[in-house]
Amino acid sequence: MENMYVATQEIQISYADTDMMGVIYHANYIKWLELGRTRLIEDIGYDYMEMEKAGYYAPVYNLEITYEKPVKLGDRVFVKTWVDVNQGLRTVYGFQIVNGEGEVCAKGSTTHIVVRKENEKFKPVQFKKVFPEWFQKYEEIKRK
Amino acid sequence: MENMYVATQEIQISYADTDMMGVIYHANYIKWLELGRTRLIEDIGYDYMEMEKAGYYAPVYNLEITYEKPVKLGDRVFVKTWVDVNQGLRTVYGFQIVNGEGEVCAKGSTTHIVVRKENEKFKPVQFKKVFPEWFQKYEEIKRK
Amino acid sequence: MENMYVATQEIQISYADTDMMGVIYHANYIKWLELGRTRLIEDIGYDYMEMEKAGYYAPVYNLEITYEKPVKLGDRVFVKTWVDVNQGLRTVYGFQIVNGEGEVCAKGSTTHIVVRKENEKFKPVQFKKVFPEWFQKYEEIKRK
Amino acid sequence: MENMYVATQEIQISYADTDMMGVIYHANYIKWLELGRTRLIEDIGYDYMEMEKAGYYAPVYNLEITYEKPVKLGDRVFVKTWVDVNQGLRTVYGFQIVNGEGEVCAKGSTTHIVVRKENEKFKPVQFKKVFPEWFQKYEEIKRK
Repeated sequence: MENMYVATQEIQISYADTDMMGVIYHANYIKWLELGRTRLIEDIGYDYMEMEKAGYYAPVYNLEITYEKPVKLGDRVFVKTWVDVNQGLRTVYGFQIVNGEGEVCAKGSTTHIVVRKENEKFKPVQFKKVFPEWFQKYEEIKRK
Repeated sequence: MENMYVATQEIQISYADTDMMGVIYHANYIKWLELGRTRLIEDIGYDYMEMEKAGYYAPVYNLEITYEKPVKLGDRVFVKTWVDVNQGLRTVYGFQIVNGEGEVCAKGSTTHIVVRKENEKFKPVQFKKVFPEWFQKYEEIKRK
Repeated sequence: MENMYVATQEIQISYADTDMMGVIYHANYIKWLELGRTRLIEDIGYDYMEMEKAGYYAPVYNLEITYEKPVKLGDRVFVKTWVDVNQGLRTVYGFQIVNGEGEVCAKGSTTHIVVRKENEKFKPVQFKKVFPEWFQKYEEIKRK
Repeated sequence: MENMYVATQEIQISYADTDMMGVIYHANYIKWLELGRTRLIEDIGYDYMEMEKAGYYAPVYNLEITYEKPVKLGDRVFVKTWVDVNQGLRTVYGFQIVNGEGEVCAKGSTTHIVVRKENEKFKPVQFKKVFPEWFQKYEEIKRK
Protein backbone atom coordinates (compact mmCIF):
# COMPACT_ATOMS: atom_id res chain seq x y z
CA MET A 1 0.00 0.00 0.00
CA GLU A 2 0.90 3.60 -0.34
CA ASN A 3 1.61 6.48 1.98
CA MET A 4 -1.62 6.51 3.94
CA TYR A 5 -2.17 5.29 7.50
CA VAL A 6 -3.60 1.75 7.53
CA ALA A 7 -5.35 0.48 10.66
CA THR A 8 -5.47 -3.28 11.34
CA GLN A 9 -8.23 -4.94 13.37
CA GLU A 10 -8.51 -8.67 14.00
CA ILE A 11 -12.05 -10.03 13.76
CA GLN A 12 -13.65 -12.66 15.99
CA ILE A 13 -15.61 -15.03 13.78
CA SER A 14 -18.07 -17.66 14.91
CA TYR A 15 -20.21 -20.58 13.78
CA ALA A 16 -23.10 -18.12 13.47
CA ASP A 17 -21.25 -16.43 10.62
CA THR A 18 -21.08 -19.54 8.43
CA ASP A 19 -23.61 -20.64 5.84
CA MET A 20 -24.49 -23.93 4.15
CA MET A 21 -21.68 -23.43 1.60
CA GLY A 22 -19.41 -24.19 4.57
CA VAL A 23 -17.80 -20.74 4.46
CA ILE A 24 -18.47 -17.37 6.08
CA TYR A 25 -21.67 -15.90 4.61
CA HIS A 26 -20.75 -12.98 2.36
CA ALA A 27 -23.00 -10.38 4.00
CA ASN A 28 -21.32 -11.00 7.35
CA TYR A 29 -18.11 -9.44 6.03
CA ILE A 30 -19.93 -6.12 5.90
CA LYS A 31 -20.31 -5.82 9.66
CA TRP A 32 -16.55 -6.43 10.04
CA LEU A 33 -15.89 -3.27 8.06
CA GLU A 34 -17.27 -1.12 10.81
CA LEU A 35 -14.94 -2.79 13.31
CA GLY A 36 -12.14 -1.81 10.92
CA ARG A 37 -13.33 1.82 10.77
CA THR A 38 -13.74 1.92 14.54
CA ARG A 39 -10.12 0.81 14.91
CA LEU A 40 -8.91 3.47 12.46
CA ILE A 41 -10.85 6.18 14.27
CA GLU A 42 -9.56 5.09 17.67
CA ASP A 43 -5.99 4.80 16.39
CA ILE A 44 -6.01 8.52 15.58
CA GLY A 45 -7.61 9.52 18.86
CA TYR A 46 -11.33 9.83 18.04
CA ASP A 47 -14.41 7.82 18.96
CA TYR A 48 -17.39 7.23 16.67
CA MET A 49 -19.73 7.09 19.67
CA GLU A 50 -18.73 10.67 20.51
CA MET A 51 -20.05 11.69 17.11
CA GLU A 52 -23.40 10.12 17.99
CA LYS A 53 -23.42 11.76 21.43
CA ALA A 54 -22.81 15.11 19.69
CA GLY A 55 -26.02 14.54 17.70
CA TYR A 56 -24.77 13.06 14.45
CA TYR A 57 -24.67 9.73 12.61
CA ALA A 58 -22.27 8.66 9.86
CA PRO A 59 -24.34 6.19 7.82
CA VAL A 60 -23.00 4.21 4.85
CA TYR A 61 -24.01 5.84 1.58
CA ASN A 62 -22.25 3.45 -0.79
CA LEU A 63 -20.53 0.10 -0.41
CA GLU A 64 -18.47 -1.82 -2.93
CA ILE A 65 -16.82 -5.17 -2.20
CA THR A 66 -15.07 -7.83 -4.28
CA TYR A 67 -14.76 -11.33 -2.82
CA GLU A 68 -11.52 -12.99 -3.86
CA LYS A 69 -11.18 -15.99 -1.59
CA PRO A 70 -13.61 -17.63 0.85
CA VAL A 71 -13.05 -17.30 4.60
CA LYS A 72 -13.65 -20.40 6.72
CA LEU A 73 -14.30 -20.94 10.38
CA GLY A 74 -10.89 -21.46 11.95
CA ASP A 75 -9.20 -18.86 9.72
CA ARG A 76 -7.80 -15.75 11.35
CA VAL A 77 -9.30 -12.61 9.82
CA PHE A 78 -7.99 -9.05 9.80
CA VAL A 79 -9.53 -5.88 8.37
CA LYS A 80 -7.16 -3.23 7.08
CA THR A 81 -8.77 0.21 6.75
CA TRP A 82 -7.64 3.60 5.52
CA VAL A 83 -9.08 6.95 4.42
CA ASP A 84 -9.23 6.83 0.65
CA VAL A 85 -11.01 10.13 -0.05
CA ASN A 86 -11.74 12.95 2.41
CA GLN A 87 -14.19 15.53 1.10
CA GLY A 88 -16.54 18.00 2.69
CA LEU A 89 -19.63 15.87 2.21
CA ARG A 90 -18.20 12.40 1.79
CA THR A 91 -15.59 10.19 3.38
CA VAL A 92 -14.46 7.11 1.48
CA TYR A 93 -12.73 4.35 3.46
CA GLY A 94 -10.75 1.72 1.58
CA PHE A 95 -10.47 -1.78 3.07
CA GLN A 96 -8.90 -5.18 2.63
CA ILE A 97 -9.95 -8.34 4.45
CA VAL A 98 -6.87 -10.48 4.93
CA ASN A 99 -6.49 -14.00 6.36
CA GLY A 100 -3.81 -15.38 8.64
CA GLU A 101 -1.59 -16.22 5.66
CA GLY A 102 -1.73 -12.60 4.51
CA GLU A 103 -3.93 -13.42 1.51
CA VAL A 104 -6.49 -10.81 0.49
CA CYS A 105 -9.93 -12.43 0.82
CA ALA A 106 -11.95 -9.33 -0.05
CA LYS A 107 -11.40 -5.66 -0.79
CA GLY A 108 -13.41 -2.57 -1.56
CA SER A 109 -14.64 0.70 -0.13
CA THR A 110 -17.43 2.29 1.89
CA THR A 111 -18.59 5.88 1.41
CA HIS A 112 -20.09 7.72 4.37
CA ILE A 113 -21.98 10.92 4.90
CA VAL A 114 -22.62 12.77 8.17
CA VAL A 115 -26.23 13.51 9.10
CA ARG A 116 -27.95 15.15 12.04
CA LYS A 117 -29.78 12.64 14.23
CA GLU A 118 -33.01 14.61 14.17
CA ASN A 119 -33.11 14.69 10.37
CA GLU A 120 -35.12 11.59 9.58
CA LYS A 121 -34.32 11.72 5.88
CA PHE A 122 -30.56 11.52 6.53
CA LYS A 123 -29.77 14.74 4.63
CA PRO A 124 -25.96 15.16 4.71
CA VAL A 125 -24.12 17.96 6.49
CA GLN A 126 -20.48 18.99 5.98
CA PHE A 127 -18.17 16.71 7.99
CA LYS A 128 -15.55 19.41 7.44
CA LYS A 129 -17.70 21.99 9.24
CA VAL A 130 -19.16 19.97 12.10
CA PHE A 131 -15.92 18.11 12.98
CA PRO A 132 -13.14 20.36 11.60
CA GLU A 133 -10.28 18.85 13.64
CA TRP A 134 -11.28 15.30 12.82
CA PHE A 135 -11.52 16.26 9.14
CA GLN A 136 -8.04 17.81 9.35
CA LYS A 137 -6.64 14.64 10.90
CA TYR A 138 -8.09 12.68 7.94
CA GLU A 139 -6.30 15.10 5.59
CA GLU A 140 -3.03 14.04 7.19
CA ILE A 141 -3.58 10.27 7.13
CA LYS A 142 -5.48 9.88 3.87
CA ARG A 143 -4.17 8.17 0.74
CA LYS A 144 -2.25 10.68 -1.39
CA MET B 1 -53.62 -26.89 22.17
CA GLU B 2 -56.08 -25.63 24.69
CA ASN B 3 -58.58 -22.83 24.95
CA MET B 4 -56.28 -19.87 24.31
CA TYR B 5 -56.00 -17.80 21.16
CA VAL B 6 -53.09 -18.97 18.99
CA ALA B 7 -51.67 -16.63 16.34
CA THR B 8 -49.92 -18.10 13.30
CA GLN B 9 -47.22 -16.26 11.35
CA GLU B 10 -45.34 -17.67 8.38
CA ILE B 11 -41.60 -16.85 8.36
CA GLN B 12 -39.48 -15.93 5.36
CA ILE B 13 -36.20 -17.81 5.65
CA SER B 14 -33.08 -17.22 3.58
CA TYR B 15 -29.61 -18.54 2.79
CA ALA B 16 -28.27 -16.05 5.34
CA ASP B 17 -30.05 -18.03 8.07
CA THR B 18 -28.21 -21.30 7.35
CA ASP B 19 -24.94 -22.46 8.91
CA MET B 20 -22.27 -24.97 7.98
CA MET B 21 -24.34 -27.83 9.47
CA GLY B 22 -26.54 -27.27 6.41
CA VAL B 23 -29.55 -26.27 8.53
CA ILE B 24 -30.96 -23.02 9.92
CA TYR B 25 -28.61 -21.72 12.64
CA HIS B 26 -30.30 -22.18 16.02
CA ALA B 27 -30.01 -18.56 17.19
CA ASN B 28 -31.87 -17.38 14.10
CA TYR B 29 -35.06 -19.02 15.37
CA ILE B 30 -35.08 -16.45 18.18
CA LYS B 31 -35.71 -13.50 15.90
CA TRP B 32 -38.71 -15.36 14.40
CA LEU B 33 -40.35 -15.38 17.81
CA GLU B 34 -40.82 -11.63 17.73
CA LEU B 35 -42.53 -11.92 14.35
CA GLY B 36 -44.84 -14.41 16.05
CA ARG B 37 -45.55 -12.02 18.94
CA THR B 38 -46.08 -9.14 16.52
CA ARG B 39 -48.72 -11.23 14.71
CA LEU B 40 -50.48 -12.09 17.97
CA ILE B 41 -50.53 -8.44 19.04
CA GLU B 42 -51.86 -7.28 15.67
CA ASP B 43 -54.49 -10.04 15.57
CA ILE B 44 -56.06 -8.61 18.72
CA GLY B 45 -55.91 -5.02 17.52
CA TYR B 46 -52.74 -3.63 19.11
CA ASP B 47 -49.33 -2.59 17.76
CA TYR B 48 -46.01 -3.05 19.56
CA MET B 49 -44.62 0.08 17.91
CA GLU B 50 -47.39 2.10 19.60
CA MET B 51 -46.02 0.91 22.94
CA GLU B 52 -42.60 2.31 21.97
CA LYS B 53 -44.12 5.58 20.76
CA ALA B 54 -45.87 5.85 24.15
CA GLY B 55 -42.45 5.73 25.82
CA TYR B 56 -42.07 2.05 26.74
CA TYR B 57 -40.15 -1.04 25.65
CA ALA B 58 -41.07 -4.68 26.25
CA PRO B 59 -37.68 -6.42 26.39
CA VAL B 60 -37.22 -10.18 26.74
CA TYR B 61 -36.42 -11.11 30.34
CA ASN B 62 -36.24 -14.88 29.92
CA LEU B 63 -36.19 -17.23 26.95
CA GLU B 64 -36.45 -21.01 26.89
CA ILE B 65 -36.41 -23.08 23.72
CA THR B 66 -36.17 -26.78 22.90
CA TYR B 67 -35.06 -27.79 19.40
CA GLU B 68 -36.78 -30.97 18.25
CA LYS B 69 -36.12 -31.15 14.52
CA PRO B 70 -33.81 -29.15 12.25
CA VAL B 71 -35.26 -26.63 9.80
CA LYS B 72 -33.72 -26.51 6.31
CA LEU B 73 -33.71 -23.94 3.57
CA GLY B 74 -36.71 -24.78 1.40
CA ASP B 75 -38.90 -25.76 4.35
CA ARG B 76 -41.94 -23.63 5.11
CA VAL B 77 -41.85 -22.31 8.67
CA PHE B 78 -44.67 -21.04 10.87
CA VAL B 79 -44.56 -19.61 14.39
CA LYS B 80 -47.58 -20.23 16.60
CA THR B 81 -47.78 -17.86 19.58
CA TRP B 82 -50.11 -17.45 22.54
CA VAL B 83 -50.25 -15.74 25.93
CA ASP B 84 -49.25 -18.35 28.47
CA VAL B 85 -49.16 -16.22 31.63
CA ASN B 86 -50.45 -12.64 32.05
CA GLN B 87 -49.31 -11.00 35.27
CA GLY B 88 -48.87 -7.43 36.40
CA LEU B 89 -45.10 -7.42 35.94
CA ARG B 90 -44.54 -10.27 33.49
CA THR B 91 -46.04 -11.59 30.31
CA VAL B 92 -45.11 -15.10 29.21
CA TYR B 93 -45.69 -16.03 25.58
CA GLY B 94 -45.69 -19.70 24.59
CA PHE B 95 -44.59 -20.66 21.09
CA GLN B 96 -44.18 -23.53 18.67
CA ILE B 97 -42.18 -23.44 15.45
CA VAL B 98 -43.87 -25.74 12.96
CA ASN B 99 -42.81 -26.80 9.46
CA GLY B 100 -44.92 -27.24 6.33
CA GLU B 101 -45.75 -30.83 7.31
CA GLY B 102 -47.12 -29.61 10.64
CA GLU B 103 -44.21 -31.09 12.60
CA VAL B 104 -43.07 -29.18 15.70
CA CYS B 105 -39.43 -28.17 15.09
CA ALA B 106 -39.01 -26.14 18.27
CA LYS B 107 -41.08 -24.97 21.22
CA GLY B 108 -40.69 -22.88 24.34
CA SER B 109 -41.54 -19.55 25.90
CA THR B 110 -40.37 -15.96 26.23
CA THR B 111 -41.01 -13.82 29.30
CA HIS B 112 -41.26 -10.05 28.86
CA ILE B 113 -41.31 -7.07 31.16
CA VAL B 114 -42.38 -3.50 30.36
CA VAL B 115 -39.88 -0.72 31.02
CA ARG B 116 -39.84 3.03 30.54
CA LYS B 117 -37.57 4.09 27.68
CA GLU B 118 -35.76 6.68 29.78
CA ASN B 119 -34.89 4.12 32.47
CA GLU B 120 -31.51 2.86 31.28
CA LYS B 121 -31.47 -0.02 33.74
CA PHE B 122 -34.68 -1.47 32.33
CA LYS B 123 -36.48 -1.46 35.71
CA PRO B 124 -39.93 -3.02 35.11
CA VAL B 125 -43.23 -1.19 35.44
CA GLN B 126 -46.71 -2.74 35.71
CA PHE B 127 -48.02 -3.67 32.25
CA LYS B 128 -51.43 -3.87 33.93
CA LYS B 129 -51.22 -0.22 34.97
CA VAL B 130 -49.64 1.40 31.92
CA PHE B 131 -51.69 -0.53 29.33
CA PRO B 132 -54.82 -1.64 31.22
CA GLU B 133 -56.98 -2.38 28.17
CA TRP B 134 -54.24 -4.38 26.47
CA PHE B 135 -53.71 -6.30 29.72
CA GLN B 136 -57.45 -7.00 29.89
CA LYS B 137 -57.44 -8.29 26.33
CA TYR B 138 -54.64 -10.69 27.29
CA GLU B 139 -56.80 -11.91 30.19
CA GLU B 140 -59.42 -12.93 27.65
CA ILE B 141 -57.15 -14.72 25.19
CA LYS B 142 -54.61 -16.30 27.56
CA ARG B 143 -54.24 -20.01 28.24
CA LYS B 144 -56.60 -21.06 31.04
CA MET C 1 -36.99 0.43 -16.25
CA GLU C 2 -36.28 -1.04 -19.63
CA ASN C 3 -37.19 -4.16 -21.54
CA MET C 4 -35.90 -6.78 -19.12
CA TYR C 5 -37.93 -9.00 -16.82
CA VAL C 6 -38.08 -7.58 -13.29
CA ALA C 7 -39.00 -9.87 -10.41
CA THR C 8 -40.58 -8.38 -7.26
CA GLN C 9 -40.25 -9.94 -3.81
CA GLU C 10 -41.68 -8.49 -0.63
CA ILE C 11 -39.36 -8.77 2.39
CA GLN C 12 -40.35 -9.61 5.96
CA ILE C 13 -38.42 -7.26 8.26
CA SER C 14 -38.13 -7.54 12.01
CA TYR C 15 -36.87 -5.80 15.14
CA ALA C 16 -33.69 -7.89 14.83
CA ASP C 17 -32.88 -6.00 11.63
CA THR C 18 -32.82 -2.57 13.29
CA ASP C 19 -29.81 -0.85 14.83
CA MET C 20 -29.30 1.94 17.35
CA MET C 21 -29.75 4.57 14.60
CA GLY C 22 -33.41 3.48 14.76
CA VAL C 23 -33.38 2.23 11.16
CA ILE C 24 -32.65 -1.07 9.43
CA TYR C 25 -28.93 -1.83 9.73
CA HIS C 26 -27.31 -1.40 6.32
CA ALA C 27 -25.71 -4.85 6.09
CA ASN C 28 -29.10 -6.48 6.57
CA TYR C 29 -30.22 -5.23 3.16
CA ILE C 30 -27.65 -7.58 1.63
CA LYS C 31 -29.42 -10.74 2.70
CA TRP C 32 -32.65 -9.41 1.13
CA LEU C 33 -30.93 -9.40 -2.24
CA GLU C 34 -30.75 -13.17 -2.31
CA LEU C 35 -34.49 -13.36 -1.63
CA GLY C 36 -34.85 -11.12 -4.68
CA ARG C 37 -32.66 -13.39 -6.82
CA THR C 38 -34.49 -16.47 -5.58
CA ARG C 39 -37.78 -14.91 -6.69
CA LEU C 40 -36.37 -14.08 -10.14
CA ILE C 41 -35.04 -17.61 -10.58
CA GLU C 42 -38.33 -19.17 -9.49
CA ASP C 43 -40.36 -16.83 -11.68
CA ILE C 44 -38.61 -18.24 -14.75
CA GLY C 45 -38.95 -21.86 -13.66
CA TYR C 46 -35.62 -22.65 -12.01
CA ASP C 47 -34.52 -23.30 -8.42
CA TYR C 48 -31.18 -22.25 -6.93
CA MET C 49 -31.22 -25.27 -4.61
CA GLU C 50 -31.23 -27.54 -7.68
CA MET C 51 -27.94 -25.93 -8.70
CA GLU C 52 -26.48 -26.90 -5.31
CA LYS C 53 -27.89 -30.42 -5.56
CA ALA C 54 -26.20 -30.72 -8.98
CA GLY C 55 -22.86 -29.98 -7.29
CA TYR C 56 -22.43 -26.24 -7.81
CA TYR C 57 -22.57 -23.00 -5.85
CA ALA C 58 -23.14 -19.49 -7.20
CA PRO C 59 -21.28 -17.26 -4.72
CA VAL C 60 -21.26 -13.47 -4.84
CA TYR C 61 -18.08 -12.17 -6.44
CA ASN C 62 -18.83 -8.46 -6.33
CA LEU C 63 -21.47 -6.34 -4.64
CA GLU C 64 -22.21 -2.65 -5.08
CA ILE C 65 -24.99 -0.82 -3.26
CA THR C 66 -26.02 2.81 -2.83
CA TYR C 67 -28.26 3.71 0.10
CA GLU C 68 -30.65 6.52 -0.78
CA LYS C 69 -33.24 6.53 1.98
CA PRO C 70 -33.37 4.73 5.33
CA VAL C 71 -35.83 1.87 5.84
CA LYS C 72 -37.64 1.73 9.18
CA LEU C 73 -39.44 -1.00 11.04
CA GLY C 74 -43.07 -0.75 9.93
CA ASP C 75 -42.17 0.12 6.33
CA ARG C 76 -43.09 -2.36 3.63
CA VAL C 77 -40.03 -3.39 1.63
CA PHE C 78 -39.78 -4.89 -1.85
CA VAL C 79 -36.73 -6.05 -3.81
CA LYS C 80 -36.87 -5.71 -7.58
CA THR C 81 -34.30 -7.88 -9.38
CA TRP C 82 -33.30 -8.41 -12.99
CA VAL C 83 -30.45 -9.90 -15.04
CA ASP C 84 -28.21 -6.99 -15.97
CA VAL C 85 -25.36 -8.86 -17.67
CA ASN C 86 -25.28 -12.55 -18.69
CA GLN C 87 -21.83 -13.78 -19.64
CA GLY C 88 -20.16 -17.17 -19.72
CA LEU C 89 -18.29 -16.67 -16.45
CA ARG C 90 -20.29 -13.94 -14.74
CA THR C 91 -23.89 -13.08 -14.09
CA VAL C 92 -24.69 -9.56 -12.94
CA TYR C 93 -28.05 -8.97 -11.25
CA GLY C 94 -29.35 -5.43 -10.90
CA PHE C 95 -31.59 -4.56 -7.97
CA GLN C 96 -33.67 -1.84 -6.38
CA ILE C 97 -35.00 -1.86 -2.83
CA VAL C 98 -38.31 -0.01 -2.83
CA ASN C 99 -40.60 0.96 0.06
CA GLY C 100 -44.39 0.86 0.25
CA GLU C 101 -44.62 4.37 -1.23
CA GLY C 102 -42.63 3.20 -4.27
CA GLU C 103 -39.56 5.21 -3.26
CA VAL C 104 -36.16 3.70 -4.09
CA CYS C 105 -34.33 3.17 -0.76
CA ALA C 106 -31.27 1.44 -2.24
CA LYS C 107 -30.01 0.21 -5.57
CA GLY C 108 -27.02 -1.58 -7.02
CA SER C 109 -25.82 -4.89 -8.41
CA THR C 110 -24.35 -8.24 -7.42
CA THR C 111 -22.00 -10.23 -9.64
CA HIS C 112 -21.96 -14.02 -9.32
CA ILE C 113 -19.77 -16.82 -10.55
CA VAL C 114 -20.53 -20.55 -10.65
CA VAL C 115 -18.12 -22.89 -8.87
CA ARG C 116 -17.95 -26.63 -8.28
CA LYS C 117 -18.71 -27.55 -4.68
CA GLU C 118 -15.60 -29.69 -4.35
CA ASN C 119 -13.33 -26.84 -5.47
CA GLU C 120 -12.43 -25.22 -2.15
CA LYS C 121 -10.85 -22.21 -3.82
CA PHE C 122 -14.10 -21.32 -5.61
CA LYS C 123 -12.49 -21.34 -9.09
CA PRO C 124 -15.23 -20.34 -11.57
CA VAL C 125 -16.69 -22.60 -14.25
CA GLN C 126 -18.76 -21.52 -17.28
CA PHE C 127 -22.41 -21.05 -16.26
CA LYS C 128 -23.14 -21.21 -19.99
CA LYS C 129 -21.68 -24.72 -20.22
CA VAL C 130 -22.93 -26.30 -17.00
CA PHE C 131 -26.47 -24.87 -17.17
CA PRO C 132 -26.99 -24.10 -20.89
CA GLU C 133 -30.79 -23.86 -20.79
CA TRP C 134 -30.80 -21.63 -17.74
CA PHE C 135 -28.19 -19.43 -19.41
CA GLN C 136 -30.37 -19.25 -22.52
CA LYS C 137 -33.36 -18.24 -20.45
CA TYR C 138 -31.27 -15.39 -18.99
CA GLU C 139 -30.43 -14.30 -22.55
CA GLU C 140 -34.13 -13.83 -23.14
CA ILE C 141 -34.98 -11.93 -19.97
CA LYS C 142 -31.83 -9.85 -19.51
CA ARG C 143 -31.59 -6.08 -19.90
CA LYS C 144 -30.91 -5.20 -23.55
CA MET D 1 -18.90 -20.15 41.54
CA GLU D 2 -18.10 -23.59 42.72
CA ASN D 3 -15.42 -26.16 42.09
CA MET D 4 -15.76 -26.52 38.33
CA TYR D 5 -13.46 -25.14 35.65
CA VAL D 6 -14.79 -21.85 34.25
CA ALA D 7 -13.53 -20.61 30.89
CA THR D 8 -13.59 -16.88 30.12
CA GLN D 9 -13.87 -15.48 26.60
CA GLU D 10 -14.05 -11.79 25.74
CA ILE D 11 -16.54 -10.95 22.97
CA GLN D 12 -16.09 -8.44 20.18
CA ILE D 13 -19.34 -6.52 19.81
CA SER D 14 -20.29 -4.21 16.98
CA TYR D 15 -22.86 -1.71 15.78
CA ALA D 16 -24.47 -4.55 13.84
CA ASP D 17 -25.39 -6.17 17.16
CA THR D 18 -27.46 -3.21 18.40
CA ASP D 19 -31.17 -2.66 17.88
CA MET D 20 -33.50 0.33 17.98
CA MET D 21 -33.77 0.05 21.79
CA GLY D 22 -30.19 1.34 21.74
CA VAL D 23 -28.82 -1.85 23.32
CA ILE D 24 -27.47 -5.17 22.05
CA TYR D 25 -30.33 -7.17 20.50
CA HIS D 26 -31.16 -10.08 22.79
CA ALA D 27 -30.82 -12.86 20.21
CA ASN D 28 -27.26 -11.76 19.47
CA TYR D 29 -26.17 -12.93 22.93
CA ILE D 30 -26.90 -16.49 21.78
CA LYS D 31 -24.09 -16.56 19.22
CA TRP D 32 -21.65 -15.41 21.94
CA LEU D 33 -22.39 -18.58 23.88
CA GLU D 34 -20.72 -20.70 21.25
CA LEU D 35 -17.60 -18.54 21.47
CA GLY D 36 -17.69 -19.29 25.18
CA ARG D 37 -18.00 -23.05 24.60
CA THR D 38 -15.24 -22.95 21.99
CA ARG D 39 -12.96 -21.31 24.57
CA LEU D 40 -13.79 -23.93 27.19
CA ILE D 41 -13.14 -26.77 24.73
CA GLU D 42 -9.84 -25.26 23.62
CA ASP D 43 -8.76 -24.56 27.19
CA ILE D 44 -8.91 -28.31 27.94
CA GLY D 45 -7.11 -29.30 24.74
CA TYR D 46 -9.91 -30.18 22.33
CA ASP D 47 -11.32 -28.55 19.19
CA TYR D 48 -14.98 -28.56 18.17
CA MET D 49 -14.01 -28.52 14.50
CA GLU D 50 -12.23 -31.87 15.02
CA MET D 51 -15.57 -33.30 16.11
CA GLU D 52 -17.09 -32.17 12.82
CA LYS D 53 -14.17 -33.55 10.83
CA ALA D 54 -14.70 -36.88 12.61
CA GLY D 55 -18.27 -36.93 11.24
CA TYR D 56 -20.31 -35.49 14.11
CA TYR D 57 -22.15 -32.34 15.06
CA ALA D 58 -23.07 -31.14 18.55
CA PRO D 59 -26.26 -29.12 17.99
CA VAL D 60 -28.09 -27.21 20.71
CA TYR D 61 -31.06 -29.18 22.02
CA ASN D 62 -32.22 -26.73 24.67
CA LEU D 63 -31.38 -23.16 25.57
CA GLU D 64 -32.42 -21.15 28.60
CA ILE D 65 -31.34 -17.55 29.23
CA THR D 66 -32.30 -14.83 31.69
CA TYR D 67 -31.47 -11.23 30.80
CA GLU D 68 -30.60 -9.20 33.88
CA LYS D 69 -29.01 -6.03 32.56
CA PRO D 70 -28.77 -4.58 29.04
CA VAL D 71 -25.41 -4.57 27.23
CA LYS D 72 -24.53 -1.45 25.25
CA LEU D 73 -22.10 -0.73 22.48
CA GLY D 74 -18.91 0.37 24.20
CA ASP D 75 -19.29 -2.12 27.08
CA ARG D 76 -16.74 -4.88 27.40
CA VAL D 77 -18.40 -8.30 27.36
CA PHE D 78 -17.13 -11.64 28.67
CA VAL D 79 -18.73 -15.08 28.53
CA LYS D 80 -17.95 -17.47 31.38
CA THR D 81 -18.70 -21.11 30.54
CA TRP D 82 -18.52 -24.39 32.42
CA VAL D 83 -19.77 -27.98 32.17
CA ASP D 84 -22.86 -28.15 34.34
CA VAL D 85 -24.01 -31.71 33.59
CA ASN D 86 -22.09 -34.41 31.69
CA GLN D 87 -24.22 -37.39 30.74
CA GLY D 88 -24.01 -40.05 28.08
CA LEU D 89 -26.54 -38.42 25.77
CA ARG D 90 -26.52 -34.80 26.94
CA THR D 91 -24.02 -32.16 27.88
CA VAL D 92 -25.27 -29.08 29.70
CA TYR D 93 -23.07 -25.99 29.68
CA GLY D 94 -23.75 -23.23 32.19
CA PHE D 95 -22.90 -19.65 31.29
CA GLN D 96 -22.79 -16.09 32.55
CA ILE D 97 -22.42 -12.99 30.40
CA VAL D 98 -20.52 -10.41 32.39
CA ASN D 99 -19.67 -6.79 31.59
CA GLY D 100 -16.45 -4.87 32.23
CA GLU D 101 -17.62 -3.93 35.73
CA GLY D 102 -18.09 -7.61 36.56
CA GLU D 103 -21.88 -7.33 36.60
CA VAL D 104 -23.86 -10.35 35.38
CA CYS D 105 -25.87 -9.21 32.34
CA ALA D 106 -27.31 -12.61 31.48
CA LYS D 107 -27.06 -16.21 32.63
CA GLY D 108 -28.42 -19.59 31.71
CA SER D 109 -27.56 -22.90 30.11
CA THR D 110 -27.40 -24.72 26.79
CA THR D 111 -27.96 -28.45 26.40
CA HIS D 112 -26.25 -30.27 23.54
CA ILE D 113 -26.51 -33.67 21.94
CA VAL D 114 -24.04 -35.36 19.60
CA VAL D 115 -25.35 -36.53 16.22
CA ARG D 116 -23.82 -38.20 13.18
CA LYS D 117 -23.52 -35.81 10.24
CA GLU D 118 -25.20 -38.23 7.84
CA ASN D 119 -28.25 -38.60 10.10
CA GLU D 120 -30.50 -35.84 8.76
CA LYS D 121 -32.94 -36.14 11.65
CA PHE D 122 -30.22 -35.37 14.21
CA LYS D 123 -30.81 -38.58 16.21
CA PRO D 124 -28.43 -38.43 19.20
CA VAL D 125 -25.53 -40.82 19.78
CA GLN D 126 -23.63 -41.37 23.05
CA PHE D 127 -20.97 -38.64 23.50
CA LYS D 128 -19.46 -40.98 26.09
CA LYS D 129 -18.97 -43.71 23.47
CA VAL D 130 -17.85 -41.70 20.45
CA PHE D 131 -15.50 -39.36 22.33
CA PRO D 132 -14.61 -41.28 25.53
CA GLU D 133 -11.51 -39.24 26.44
CA TRP D 134 -13.26 -35.93 25.92
CA PHE D 135 -16.17 -37.21 28.04
CA GLN D 136 -13.73 -38.21 30.76
CA LYS D 137 -12.12 -34.79 30.70
CA TYR D 138 -15.58 -33.25 31.22
CA GLU D 139 -16.04 -35.55 34.22
CA GLU D 140 -12.98 -33.92 35.76
CA ILE D 141 -13.88 -30.30 35.11
CA LYS D 142 -17.65 -30.39 35.56
CA ARG D 143 -19.59 -28.75 38.38
CA LYS D 144 -19.80 -31.11 41.35
